[in-house]
Amino acid sequence: MTNDAPRPVYFLSDSTGITAETLGNTLLTQFPGNNFDRITVPFITTAEQARAVVTTIDAVADAGLRPLVFSTAVSSEIRSILETCKAAVVDLIGTHVPQLEAALGTRASGEPGRAHGLGNAARYQSRMAAVEYAMEHDDGQSLRALEKAQVILVAPSRCGKTPTTMYLALQHGIFAANFPLVDEDFEREGLPKPLRPFVSKCFGLSSNPLRLSQIRTERRSGSPYASLRQCGYELRSAEQLYMAHRIPFLNSATVSVEEMAATILQRMNLKH
Amino acid sequence: MTNDAPRPVYFLSDSTGITAETLGNTLLTQFPGNNFDRITVPFITTAEQARAVVTTIDAVADAGLRPLVFSTAVSSEIRSILETCKAAVVDLIGTHVPQLEAALGTRASGEPGRAHGLGNAARYQSRMAAVEYAMEHDDGQSLRALEKAQVILVAPSRCGKTPTTMYLALQHGIFAANFPLVDEDFEREGLPKPLRPFVSKCFGLSSNPLRLSQIRTERRSGSPYASLRQCGYELRSAEQLYMAHRIPFLNSATVSVEEMAATILQRMNLKH
Repeated sequence: MTNDAPRPVYFLSDSTGITAETLGNTLLTQFPGNNFDRITVPFITTAEQARAVVTTIDAVADAGLRPLVFSTAVSSEIRSILETCKAAVVDLIGTHVPQLEAALGTRASGEPGRAHGLGNAARYQSRMAAVEYAMEHDDGQSLRALEKAQVILVAPSRCGKTPTTMYLALQHGIFAANFPLVDEDFEREGLPKPLRPFVSKCFGLSSNPLRLSQIRTERRSGSPYASLRQCGYELRSAEQLYMAHRIPFLNSATVSVEEMAATILQRMNLKH
Repeated sequence: MTNDAPRPVYFLSDSTGITAETLGNTLLTQFPGNNFDRITVPFITTAEQARAVVTTIDAVADAGLRPLVFSTAVSSEIRSILETCKAAVVDLIGTHVPQLEAALGTRASGEPGRAHGLGNAARYQSRMAAVEYAMEHDDGQSLRALEKAQVILVAPSRCGKTPTTMYLALQHGIFAANFPLVDEDFEREGLPKPLRPFVSKCFGLSSNPLRLSQIRTERRSGSPYASLRQCGYELRSAEQLYMAHRIPFLNSATVSVEEMAATILQRMNLKH
């Protein structure tokens, strides 16, 4: 075995495993010199399943590098089984329970909760309604019911309106519409007419001409639409429009949809 | 102040705050008798911003119940400022660093990483391409390029196809299409024709008649479409279809989109 053999990393959860993956990967970014082989095992909900996972991990441990485990199992029974495996177990729940018990002056229930479950049914329903709303109002395809929007993302084509809208709806339950800016909008005076009553709900996206041109080239290579000149014109015009109407905006070129969504929530003071 | 006054809970992050919220809320589900007032502060990236947050929290602490803080700040400088506040600080990063340093035999970099940033650019691009694909292939609206799908969600109307498809694309970068089952599909023999070449990629969703009828009633109250009889017929027929063609399926009535997505990844053995 060479030094370059990847170290096995397990993300274990009694739920979806998303939190274990996300926090585990954030922690791993602190150790950039290493090479990891990642495996997610969600829905470990019975003692028998937990023991089967331990058997698998032990076999891997016996065959090579000591594995790392990130666990978000909430059940204290499942946790106590998982921690017996021959790996370095980073228990993202159990580690913090004693501190919380002390701070709150009560004992933890030890019962599994579901951060990614249905949870609060009303909140879940409203997230699903937000997804439906976002689908119906994508790319200005329906201008009915814009008054229901909590935010309207405005931008030239391919600046990230659609995925950001979807993320705001799915993750945060925000009613988000989006509206594409096209050449005619820049040639006319003022804001596009459908947006005028709702300027206070508008949030603009911009990009860098080079980045936008690259993205548009993937879709329509060699077209005027993808040219650096056209991208530069649209972005400049869009930013002028945003500034003239005091529409807050951000450059989407170097940020992710998650970061854009969090920024929009914060800047527009949206409740989620 | 009464015993029922909510305890302030802060989710602090140098990134989006999503992980702090998710893991923090999972931990709080272990303490069901308490009442919490939640505030998320994302993008704390400078020492000055961190000190401003500490000042805010200290003022809140002086006025009432000792706040709880869940922090996912990665920068050791930011962490060291945040931990000085007059709150119980649950440091979801710093707490685990020593254990990882020991396991990996190297020091943590202390530099901020971005779990919800662009990260691996190729992986991010493929997630965005997956969102675009999901939008184009929602509700069977485009049957072109079904061969590109990694999974095709099949179900009667309102069983959760669309939000689950979006979640698979946005969170996991999976190319997911979906296909609605309607009465004509149940009256004919066999699978709907567009699905036949791709049966191995199909995953079915079902629901409970009562739940489905409630959801459809919100959309079209009193319609035959929303009737318990029609919902029961469609769900029974859909499940028979799934079983006849060995299409794996799950009941969406009591699980979230996150749970459905994680189950589909696992059952279909999809790489993400």
